[in-house]
Amino acid sequence: MIIVGIDPGLATVGFGVIQKSEENIIPVSYGCIRTSANKKTPERLLDIYNETNALFEKYNPQTVAIEKLFFNKNVTSAMRVSEARGVILLAAQQKQIPVFEYTPAQIKQAITGAGRADKRQMQEMIKSLLGLDELPRPDDAADGLSIALCHIHIMR
Amino acid sequence: MIIVGIDPGLATVGFGVIQKSEENIIPVSYGCIRTSANKKTPERLLDIYNETNALFEKYNPQTVAIEKLFFNKNVTSAMRVSEARGVILLAAQQKQIPVFEYTPAQIKQAITGAGRADKRQMQEMIKSLLGLDELPRPDDAADGLSIALCHIHIMR
Repeated sequence: MIIVGIDPGLATVGFGVIQKSEENIIPVSYGCIRTSANKKTPERLLDIYNETNALFEKYNPQTVAIEKLFFNKNVTSAMRVSEARGVILLAAQQKQIPVFEYTPAQIKQAITGAGRADKRQMQEMIKSLLGLDELPRPDDAADGLSIALCHIHIMR
Repeated sequence: MIIVGIDPGLATVGFGVIQKSEENIIPVSYGCIRTSANKKTPERLLDIYNETNALFEKYNPQTVAIEKLFFNKNVTSAMRVSEARGVILLAAQQKQIPVFEYTPAQIKQAITGAGRADKRQMQEMIKSLLGLDELPRPDDAADGLSIALCHIHIMR
C-alpha cells in the first residue's frame, strides 16, 4: 500500500511517499510543493490544491497521513497553515482517500520512541529506517516522510 | 454588481448576496451552509466546497467578501474556521472571483460607524440599510450580509 505523508503549510508543503508491503517499507518519493510569496493567498491555495491533486494522481495512495497542528503555535501562522490543510483535506476527500492526523508529539514518538530528538536526529532515524543514502532534505520533505512512517508505526 | 459576503465556519457558513447598482443596494439572498457534526472534517470541507461552488454558480458574483479571523480567538476554533476558509478561498480562486477580507472590527465600523453595537443592533442596521421586512436570521446569515455591506461601504 502507498501512504502519502504531508506536512502542511502555505509557503511549503512537505510530502513523503512510502510503499509498505508485508516485508518492507520502501521510500518512493519525497519533496516539497512551494508557493510564491508574490501571489495572494487564494492563488497559493489553488497552487497547493492542484499540486496535491497531481501528487495523489501520480502515486494513487490508499492513505494520507497529515500533521495535526499543535494548539499553542503562533495563531496567525496556525491559521495560514490551516487554510492550506483545508484544501489538502478537500483534495483527499474528493478522491475518497482516508486521512489520518497525527500531532508532532505522536510523530516524534513514533520515529524515535522517545520524543526528545532534534530535527537532525529525526532525519538520521528516517534515513536509517528507509535505507536512504543521504539525509532526506529539505526539512519539510523529511517531515512528510516522518508523518507517513508515523502512520505505518501506529497502524501496526 | 453582485457581492457575496461570507462568514466562514466548519459547522455553519453564513452568506449574504447583495446586488449593488449606481442607485441602490438590493438584498438578493441570504442564508447558511450547514455541515453535519456526524461527518469527519474532510467530508464537511467537501460539503462546504460544493455548496460554495453552487452559490457562486447560482449568483455569479463579481466579488467575494469574507471575514478575516481575529487573531486572539480560541486557537482550536480558529484553526477549524481557517480550514473552511481555505476551501472557500479555493472555490473563489478557481472561478477567478476577487476576494476581499475584512476584520470583525472593520465590518462593525462599516455598518454602525461606531464599533460598539451588539449583534441585535447590527441586525437592526442591516435590516434598515437593506430595507428588509424583518431582522435577517440566523446570525451567520446576518453576518454574511454585513460583510457584503462592509465591502460596498469601503469601496465607496
